[in-house]
Amino acid sequence: MTPLATEMNSKSGSGPYFVGVDVGGTNIETGIVDDSGTTLSRASSKTQAARGPELGLQTIFKSVESAIAQSPVSMEDVFAIGLATPGTMDLRRGMLLDPPNLPGWVNLPIRQIVADHFQKPVVLQNDANAAAYGEYWVGAARDAHSMAFWTLGTGIGCGIIIGDTIIQGEHSHGSECGHIIIDMNGERKCGTGQYGTLEAYAGAKALVSRCREALNAGRQSSLSAMLDQGDDLTPLLIAQAAQSGDALADELVMDTARYMGIATTTLMHTIDPNMFLLGGAMTFGGNDSELGRRFLKRIKDEVQTRAFPVPAEQTKIDFASLGNEAGYIGAAGCARREFHVEFRSR
Amino acid sequence: MTPLATEMNSKSGSGPYFVGVDVGGTNIETGIVDDSGTTLSRASSKTQAARGPELGLQTIFKSVESAIAQSPVSMEDVFAIGLATPGTMDLRRGMLLDPPNLPGWVNLPIRQIVADHFQKPVVLQNDANAAAYGEYWVGAARDAHSMAFWTLGTGIGCGIIIGDTIIQGEHSHGSECGHIIIDMNGERKCGTGQYGTLEAYAGAKALVSRCREALNAGRQSSLSAMLDQGDDLTPLLIAQAAQSGDALADELVMDTARYMGIATTTLMHTIDPNMFLLGGAMTFGGNDSELGRRFLKRIKDEVQTRAFPVPAEQTKIDFASLGNEAGYIGAAGCARREFHVEFRSR
Repeated sequence: MTPLATEMNSKSGSGPYFVGVDVGGTNIETGIVDDSGTTLSRASSKTQAARGPELGLQTIFKSVESAIAQSPVSMEDVFAIGLATPGTMDLRRGMLLDPPNLPGWVNLPIRQIVADHFQKPVVLQNDANAAAYGEYWVGAARDAHSMAFWTLGTGIGCGIIIGDTIIQGEHSHGSECGHIIIDMNGERKCGTGQYGTLEAYAGAKALVSRCREALNAGRQSSLSAMLDQGDDLTPLLIAQAAQSGDALADELVMDTARYMGIATTTLMHTIDPNMFLLGGAMTFGGNDSELGRRFLKRIKDEVQTRAFPVPAEQTKIDFASLGNEAGYIGAAGCARREFHVEFRSR
Repeated sequence: MTPLATEMNSKSGSGPYFVGVDVGGTNIETGIVDDSGTTLSRASSKTQAARGPELGLQTIFKSVESAIAQSPVSMEDVFAIGLATPGTMDLRRGMLLDPPNLPGWVNLPIRQIVADHFQKPVVLQNDANAAAYGEYWVGAARDAHSMAFWTLGTGIGCGIIIGDTIIQGEHSHGSECGHIIIDMNGERKCGTGQYGTLEAYAGAKALVSRCREALNAGRQSSLSAMLDQGDDLTPLLIAQAAQSGDALADELVMDTARYMGIATTTLMHTIDPNMFLLGGAMTFGGNDSELGRRFLKRIKDEVQTRAFPVPAEQTKIDFASLGNEAGYIGAAGCARREFHVEFRSR
């Protein structure tokens, strides 16, 4: 139990409490979160998504019970539950439709099932939107009125918050900015088959593809030798090569930054938020790494070249702060935002 | 006086009343608008923008007085005034900064000046946002929860409304979607100098440039003969040629539609609204014209190719309905939205 959680045993005015569950294709991360966004306890389980929704739902239930058991609060003290899942989904109906990362979890009324099980109000949110809301509520964007959060990984996720409103769209497709078109003539395709999208250029798979193409075209690189030794080409391997001074690897990482800068500029011309944050597995070490800092600087340089002077000067661009806790914290925040009547937006 | 305005003489519960003023680079359009969005009277004046802000402000004052004089209501009955102007501007401070279309109207606290003159609350809004709000309030998007409005002209303007919130941004640069990047490698520049933006490809100037390039490259077209006769190449001339079956002109118009479809797809992946509307001078006759209908269809076809299935199927794309009245009606609506406490958002 953390010092904060111990302190909470006195329940000195930090209720109500919220449960946040971040259901990923690999892990389920659950937390009990108080009204100030502080985590009282956590639980982590393997999703085993391919084994189907029945087992998955049982795992979600157990994960919540485990987090409650480790916390100073009981289920009676929980005000509401927030669920974050990957899409596709119908947020208004609280349903999963056919999420590629949760194969077989098709047309699943997950909100109602979890609400019936725990007899609590439940809100469902897209995982990238929930993570954005976590950063907005208590993370690196906690002082911003509006923000966009890029999650860089196999795909490129995004969440946009404006004045406490989550831009989730009319068909649960809002903030899917990994799919904005950066090259209308581009022949690269993203995971969902669209041409010329940000994800088709800046996603992890795209980074690997661009690297392979460059090597096949005869570009010199330390990566060639690694491949000859039988290593698989991965974003991590490319990042390590870039950190070791490999020119091709560095160029590929900086090209990724350029694509992110272009898409960030497009969002500045659309949303014009206070802040952009970058998170996810492919942030090249973030502020703790020389490569991460150069990655961020390259994004900023591209924005400076392309955006209007006032937003270019005033809009902050930085790495996120909550890591893989953003999802469940944000899910809990969504529950608080949706159901806790005392809440006032900033 | 219109029949509706005559009817209004009885003041049968349609107050409060609002003044909307749309200050363009060429004309100032003013209207007295009631609580249901009905125009009671209109006035139109030449801006004579180049003669400076002093004369411009006097013209605004006279325009409002003229509209009031033609209406059944007096200035005392006016609840608030909405001003729509081109940018650049600082919406929070109610100031024009340095609008290219109002040369010399620099650092002008126009909101305060108009408020002091009429002793009424005044709200300032970007002209494209105001026009979007007009269409949202009482125009073609009146049944939508969220919408984006493209204005096609020399530049490409845009306004986005989500649940009665105008996406004006933190630095008064929200909804400037004419500047979203559709071709990251594009060498065309828009009016403000950005490369690869929507406006650089789909704006009226871009249409003329693309046409000139094609003719210079030897493309056959009826437009060549017109140019030989000394005609200036204009969007109207290109549209007329397209309507007369000129293959090059038709291709250029349909390319414009393709660019609009690409940018519309990007906005669907960002905002995911119920509806997109198209207005402005360059809509090729709209629904009343065979060319306009094909222009719209080409936009929809591009969206169908590129967007996700659910939003592609469910999002409406159509022409706007208020014509050049959208600006002052929307400005009046912004005043109503900002100051009329009885108003409830949908």
